[in-house]
Amino acid sequence: MIVVTKSSITEERIAEIVAHIERAGVQAHVSRGTDRTVIGIIGKAEPTLAEHLRQMKGVEQVIKISKSYKLASRDFHPDDTIIEVKGVKIGGDQLVVMGGPCAVESPEQIDEIARLVKAAGAQVLRGGAFKPRTGPYSFQGIGVEGLKMMAEAGSKHGLLTITEVMTPEYVDVCAEYADILQVGTRNMQNFDLLRKLGTIRKPVLLKRGFSATYDEFLNAAEYILAGGNPNVMLCERGIRTFETYTRNTLDLAAIPVLQQLSHLPVISDPSHGTGRRELVEPMAKASVAAGANGLIIEMHTDPDNSMTGDGVQSLFPDQFARLMKELEQLGALVGRRFDTPKEPAERFAEWKVV
Amino acid sequence: MIVVTKSSITEERIAEIVAHIERAGVQAHVSRGTDRTVIGIIGKAEPTLAEHLRQMKGVEQVIKISKSYKLASRDFHPDDTIIEVKGVKIGGDQLVVMGGPCAVESPEQIDEIARLVKAAGAQVLRGGAFKPRTGPYSFQGIGVEGLKMMAEAGSKHGLLTITEVMTPEYVDVCAEYADILQVGTRNMQNFDLLRKLGTIRKPVLLKRGFSATYDEFLNAAEYILAGGNPNVMLCERGIRTFETYTRNTLDLAAIPVLQQLSHLPVISDPSHGTGRRELVEPMAKASVAAGANGLIIEMHTDPDNSMTGDGVQSLFPDQFARLMKELEQLGALVGRRFDTPKEPAERFAEWKVV
Amino acid sequence: MIVVTKSSITEERIAEIVAHIERAGVQAHVSRGTDRTVIGIIGKAEPTLAEHLRQMKGVEQVIKISKSYKLASRDFHPDDTIIEVKGVKIGGDQLVVMGGPCAVESPEQIDEIARLVKAAGAQVLRGGAFKPRTGPYSFQGIGVEGLKMMAEAGSKHGLLTITEVMTPEYVDVCAEYADILQVGTRNMQNFDLLRKLGTIRKPVLLKRGFSATYDEFLNAAEYILAGGNPNVMLCERGIRTFETYTRNTLDLAAIPVLQQLSHLPVISDPSHGTGRRELVEPMAKASVAAGANGLIIEMHTDPDNSMTGDGVQSLFPDQFARLMKELEQLGALVGRRFDTPKEPAERFAEWKVV
Amino acid sequence: MIVVTKSSITEERIAEIVAHIERAGVQAHVSRGTDRTVIGIIGKAEPTLAEHLRQMKGVEQVIKISKSYKLASRDFHPDDTIIEVKGVKIGGDQLVVMGGPCAVESPEQIDEIARLVKAAGAQVLRGGAFKPRTGPYSFQGIGVEGLKMMAEAGSKHGLLTITEVMTPEYVDVCAEYADILQVGTRNMQNFDLLRKLGTIRKPVLLKRGFSATYDEFLNAAEYILAGGNPNVMLCERGIRTFETYTRNTLDLAAIPVLQQLSHLPVISDPSHGTGRRELVEPMAKASVAAGANGLIIEMHTDPDNSMTGDGVQSLFPDQFARLMKELEQLGALVGRRFDTPKEPAERFAEWKVV
Repeated sequence: MIVVTKSSITEERIAEIVAHIERAGVQAHVSRGTDRTVIGIIGKAEPTLAEHLRQMKGVEQVIKISKSYKLASRDFHPDDTIIEVKGVKIGGDQLVVMGGPCAVESPEQIDEIARLVKAAGAQVLRGGAFKPRTGPYSFQGIGVEGLKMMAEAGSKHGLLTITEVMTPEYVDVCAEYADILQVGTRNMQNFDLLRKLGTIRKPVLLKRGFSATYDEFLNAAEYILAGGNPNVMLCERGIRTFETYTRNTLDLAAIPVLQQLSHLPVISDPSHGTGRRELVEPMAKASVAAGANGLIIEMHTDPDNSMTGDGVQSLFPDQFARLMKELEQLGALVGRRFDTPKEPAERFAEWKVV
Repeated sequence: MIVVTKSSITEERIAEIVAHIERAGVQAHVSRGTDRTVIGIIGKAEPTLAEHLRQMKGVEQVIKISKSYKLASRDFHPDDTIIEVKGVKIGGDQLVVMGGPCAVESPEQIDEIARLVKAAGAQVLRGGAFKPRTGPYSFQGIGVEGLKMMAEAGSKHGLLTITEVMTPEYVDVCAEYADILQVGTRNMQNFDLLRKLGTIRKPVLLKRGFSATYDEFLNAAEYILAGGNPNVMLCERGIRTFETYTRNTLDLAAIPVLQQLSHLPVISDPSHGTGRRELVEPMAKASVAAGANGLIIEMHTDPDNSMTGDGVQSLFPDQFARLMKELEQLGALVGRRFDTPKEPAERFAEWKVV
Repeated sequence: MIVVTKSSITEERIAEIVAHIERAGVQAHVSRGTDRTVIGIIGKAEPTLAEHLRQMKGVEQVIKISKSYKLASRDFHPDDTIIEVKGVKIGGDQLVVMGGPCAVESPEQIDEIARLVKAAGAQVLRGGAFKPRTGPYSFQGIGVEGLKMMAEAGSKHGLLTITEVMTPEYVDVCAEYADILQVGTRNMQNFDLLRKLGTIRKPVLLKRGFSATYDEFLNAAEYILAGGNPNVMLCERGIRTFETYTRNTLDLAAIPVLQQLSHLPVISDPSHGTGRRELVEPMAKASVAAGANGLIIEMHTDPDNSMTGDGVQSLFPDQFARLMKELEQLGALVGRRFDTPKEPAERFAEWKVV
Repeated sequence: MIVVTKSSITEERIAEIVAHIERAGVQAHVSRGTDRTVIGIIGKAEPTLAEHLRQMKGVEQVIKISKSYKLASRDFHPDDTIIEVKGVKIGGDQLVVMGGPCAVESPEQIDEIARLVKAAGAQVLRGGAFKPRTGPYSFQGIGVEGLKMMAEAGSKHGLLTITEVMTPEYVDVCAEYADILQVGTRNMQNFDLLRKLGTIRKPVLLKRGFSATYDEFLNAAEYILAGGNPNVMLCERGIRTFETYTRNTLDLAAIPVLQQLSHLPVISDPSHGTGRRELVEPMAKASVAAGANGLIIEMHTDPDNSMTGDGVQSLFPDQFARLMKELEQLGALVGRRFDTPKEPAERFAEWKVV
C-alpha cells in the first residue's frame, strides 16, 4: 500500500500518518520526492487501514498494491480449482455446457428440453424457477414447483441442474433441488445472499454484476469463499455500456483476466451477453477460443412462445446441437476437453427426487 | 406498442402476429411501408404481450410507447406526492436535508452528530447500522445496536432517522427503530427486498442503482408501490461512468427528469455522488438549483477517523452548518422552502425508544 | 512517479530498472515491501520515462503522481485566467452567456436571434457555419457565408461571436470572422487542429470529448497552450453513459473539479448536455450553482423548423430571456456577476465586417 | 419512420404534422391508439425529415426504421466486399494479419520487424509515422521519414503496409507511401478527414471510435463511401467502459453484428483492445472464432524499449509467429483461409519506393 500525500503537506502531518501506520503494526517507509512525499507501507495491514489513511488530512491518494481478496486469488491458490459434482468436473481442461430455457414452464417443457440438452452432449440443465424481472407485472417464475420439475428432468436424463436463487431465505430449498445455485447479475453484491451461500457446500455460479469491475467481482466471490464454501464459479455475462444494439457487451477479455487473477473456473454466457439469437453461436465460439471453462446457453423448443420474452436470445434445439459439435472441435485446439459424464443416465436416476 | 417487422416477412407471418395480438384482447393496426410493415397495438395490453411479440419470427423490434410502470408515473398521479412523517413534509415545495455519519459508531458519536445536525437546521439524521461493503474483510456495521443508538439520538434531538436495510429479514427490525428505510444502490433490484418493503408503510428512500436507467429505477419503485406502500422517495446518488476521478458521476438531470416522469420526491446524494468532500458543497447547491426535494449528506465530527473510510466524503460540522444557510437562500430562488419541524424536540421525545 | 514491480521480480531486474531511471537523470528510491518492491522516482522526469518504464519486464504498474499537463494546471498558474475580448471578461467572478441557434441559416434568422440574445442581456452570439454531423446526408452547415452573416449580426447588435472550426485549414477564416473559436466534442483529440489553434491568439472554447476523462481534457487544452495560445476555455457538454433518455449525461462535478485542477474558465452547455428543451433551464441553473464561469445555450426563434433538428433542445426567446434573469439572481448567491458589456452596441460596430 | 405523438396532442397539431410529411413527398399513415396517436411514414424520405419532425410541437419521439447509412449497408450490397491490394485479398473467407510496431523508429527496426512479420506468414506491415498522443510532450512519431522507411521495408519483404493518417493535409503523402491508410479511434468522426479519404482509392481501415455506437461507426464509413472510395475496412479496437484493468473493452460481438449490418470486412485489434500483452493471444483467437476477417497486432523486437510506451501490449516475435500458426488452425474451423500472398517477395519489390 502506498500513501501519496498532498504537495502542501506539513512535516507534522507526515509524522501523524507515520504514527498511525505504525500503530497498526506495520512499517512506514517515507520517500520525499520533488513534488510530493510518498509513504510506503511494509507488512500485512488490516484492510481497514487503507480506509482510515484515505481520509486523513494531507493524504491525496492511497494506492493498494496487494489485492483486497485473498481466497479467490491465484497467489493464494496457484492451481486451478476443479469442482466435481456427480462425476462432472468443472474447471481445468474440461469444457462444461449448461443448456436450457430461461424459465421452467411445465413438466413437459423441461423434460423435452432436458432430453435435447442431453442428446446434444451437454452436462448441465439450466432453468429458472425464480425470475428477477425489471418490473413487478412481468412473469416472475413458477417457484418451488419449477425446482421440482427441473430436478425430475435432470435426474431422468442424467444431467446436473442449475437454477437461480434470489434471496437468502430460498437458498435451502434451491440447494435441496438443484446441483448448482446461480447468483444473478443484479445480486452480485447482495451481500446477505452471498454470506448465506458461504454456509452451504453446493457449487455456486456467481454472475458478474453488469457494471462490476473484476476487482468487485472477485471480492463478491470472496464473500462466499470466506464463508467456507470453496465451490465457486465465475460467470461473465456481459456488461452495460453505451451500446444498445446488443443487450449487453460481452467482455471476453474477462475470461483470461479472471483466470490469471483467480483459480476459479470461468463460465461465459453468450445468451445474456448479447440478447440476440444470431450472436450466440459466434460468441460461444469466441468464448471457448478465449479459454472459457464452460458456457451457459439458453435453448428452447418453442422460443416464439417462451414465458419470459427471452426466446429472442434462445437457440433452437438443432442450433444448440450443431454448436455443441463445433465447440468440441474448437475446444480441442485450445486445450479444452468436452467430457460428457461417463456415468450413464441411470446413475443420475439414483438421485431422483422423491 | 408498435411491432416493427423484418423486411423479409411473409404475409403468413404478419397474419400470425395479428392473430396473436387479437387473442390478447387488443386491436392490431397494420401499416405497410416501402421497406417494412409496422403493426400498431391499440388498447391496454398485458405487459407480457410485448415479451411474446419480441420473440416471434419475423419481428425485428417491439417499441413500447406506454411506460411499464403505472403507480410511479405522473400520468397516473399528477400531483406531487408529499410524505409526512412526524410533522416533517417531504416532497412538493419543501426542502429536506438528511445529515449524519456514514456509520453509527458509538452512542456518543451519534448523539453529538445528531445535536449538530439539528443545530444546523436539518430535519433527518442519517447513519448506517448495516453497511454493504465491497469485500468481506471491511467493517460491516454494528448492527441492531446501531439502530437503537440512532433512535435514541433522533428522539433526543428531535430528528427523524433514516438507515439502510439490506435484506428482507431485517426490514421489520429496521422499521421498528428508524423513521425512513433506505435501499442502497446495490440493492435497487433486490426484488425480494422491494417486495417486503411494499408490505410496510414506513417511508422508503430508494437509491438509484449505479448503472440503472431512469426506467429501471421507476420500475424498482413500482415494486414497492405495487405492494401497497405509497411512501417512496427516489434518490440520485451518482452513476458509474468511465470517469474515475470522482467516485461516481452525479447525474443531476435525473432530478428534473424523474420529477417529470413521476410524482415521487427526488433526493440528491452529493456525498456518494462525488466521493470527495470538496465537491459536496457545489454539488449540493447544484442539486437544489436543479429542483431537488432534498439532500442526503454525510457529516462527521472526526472524518479522519471514521470507521468506514467514507470520511473522505464527509463534511465537517461547520461546513455542514454553513452549507445549510446557503441552501436556504438558494432554495428560495427555485421554489423550495426549508421548514425545520415546527414541533419542538419534546414532541419527538414522545416517540422515544423504550 | 512510482513503479510497482511484479511480486516475482528478480534483483537483476530491479537493478536494470534503477539504472534506466538514473540514466534519465532522476533518482530512484527503492522500497522493499513484504509482497512487492516499489521504486519511487525523485526529480522531474521526461514524460516518456513513464512510457518506457511501463513496458519493462518485471514492472506491474507505473503510477504517475504529477500531472502530465503543466500550463493548464493550477499548480503552474494559481490565479484564475481571465480572458478579455472586446471588453467582455470571461473567467473569475464574471458570468458569461453565449446564446444563439445551432446553425446559422440566413441573414434574417441570425440578425433576429442576435437582437433577442442582446436584449436578454447575454454577451456572446453562438451559431454554427460548419456542422459536424453523424451521417453525410444531413445538413452540413452553410460554410463561410454563415461566418459572414454571424459577424454582421454580432457587430450590429454589440455581441461577441463564437463558432465551431472543424479542421486546421479553416482556422484562419474562422478566426477572421469570429471572436471565439469552438472545438467540438468529436474533435477534442484532433491534435492537428489543436496544434493549429495554438498558433493563433483568438480565444478557443474547447469542448470536452463525450468520453474524455478530466485528465485527457486538460491534456487537450495543453496542446493549445503549449502552442502559445493562452486563451482557452473548457466546456463541459455532457458525457456518454448507458442512459439514453437524455442525449448525454451533463457531468456538473466537472465544473468544480476543473476549476480546482486548472485556472482556465469553465463553461457549461446544458443544451447538448441534455438534448431536451425542458431540461435546459434546471441544468443551466444547476451549472451556475456549481460555480460555472459561463453557459452556452441554444436559442431559436422557430425551433420547430431549425435546419439541424436541434430545435428540440433550443429554448424559445422568451424562455431564454426569463432564464437570464433567474441566472443573475442565482449567480449573485455564488459569487458570479453578470456584466453585460459596458460598451454600447456602437463600439462593437467599429469592428464591422466590410 | 414512425412519429409517436404526445398524449396531449390536438387534432390541429396532428394535421400539421401530416401536412409537413406530405409536403416532403411521402405518405403519412395515422394510427389512433388508446394513449397516443402514431403516424407512420411510407416512402423514401429525405434524411432531414426526421430531424424536422423530431422538433415539431406535439411530437414525443421519432423512430427510424430504415438505417441512415446506405452504401455501407448489407441491404444495399448483399455480397461481402473483397478488397484486393497487390494480390492480397481482404474480406470474404480470407484471414489477413497486419503486424508490426506501434511506431516506426528507425530503418533497422522496421526492416527487422518486417522480416519477422513476413516469416510468420502475415501479409501486412503496420507501423505509425504520425502518432496521436494524449499529451503534447509525448513522442509524436517521426513523420514522413517513417513513411519512407516503412515503404522500403514492406517492399523489400513483400508486405503490404498500413499507417495512420491524422489530418486531411497528410492524406496524399500517406497514400503515396502506404498501401492502406488507417483512421485512428479519436478521428472516427473527423469528418473533414473522412471526406478527403473519400476522394482517393487506396483502402482505408477505419477504427471504431472508442465510444461510438455501431450506427455511428457505419455512418462514418458512409462518409468515405459516399465520397467515392469503396475500399473501406472496419476495425473493432475496444470501447471505453467503466473497467480500467484493461485499456479498453474489446467488443467482439461487433464482429458478427457489423458483418450482418454491412458488407465491409471487419478487422479486430486485440492489442489496443486489451492493452496487455498477455491478453493479446486469447483475444486474437477469440476474434477469429467470432468470424473476424483479419487482425491487426502489435509486435516489437524490443518491446521494453519501444518509443511510445506501447511495448506493454506488443507481442515478442516468437509469440507472434506461434500465434499465427494457431490462428491458421482455428480459422479453418470457422471458414477462414490464411493465404499468404502467392506473389513472391520480388513482385512486391517492383513497387519499391525510389
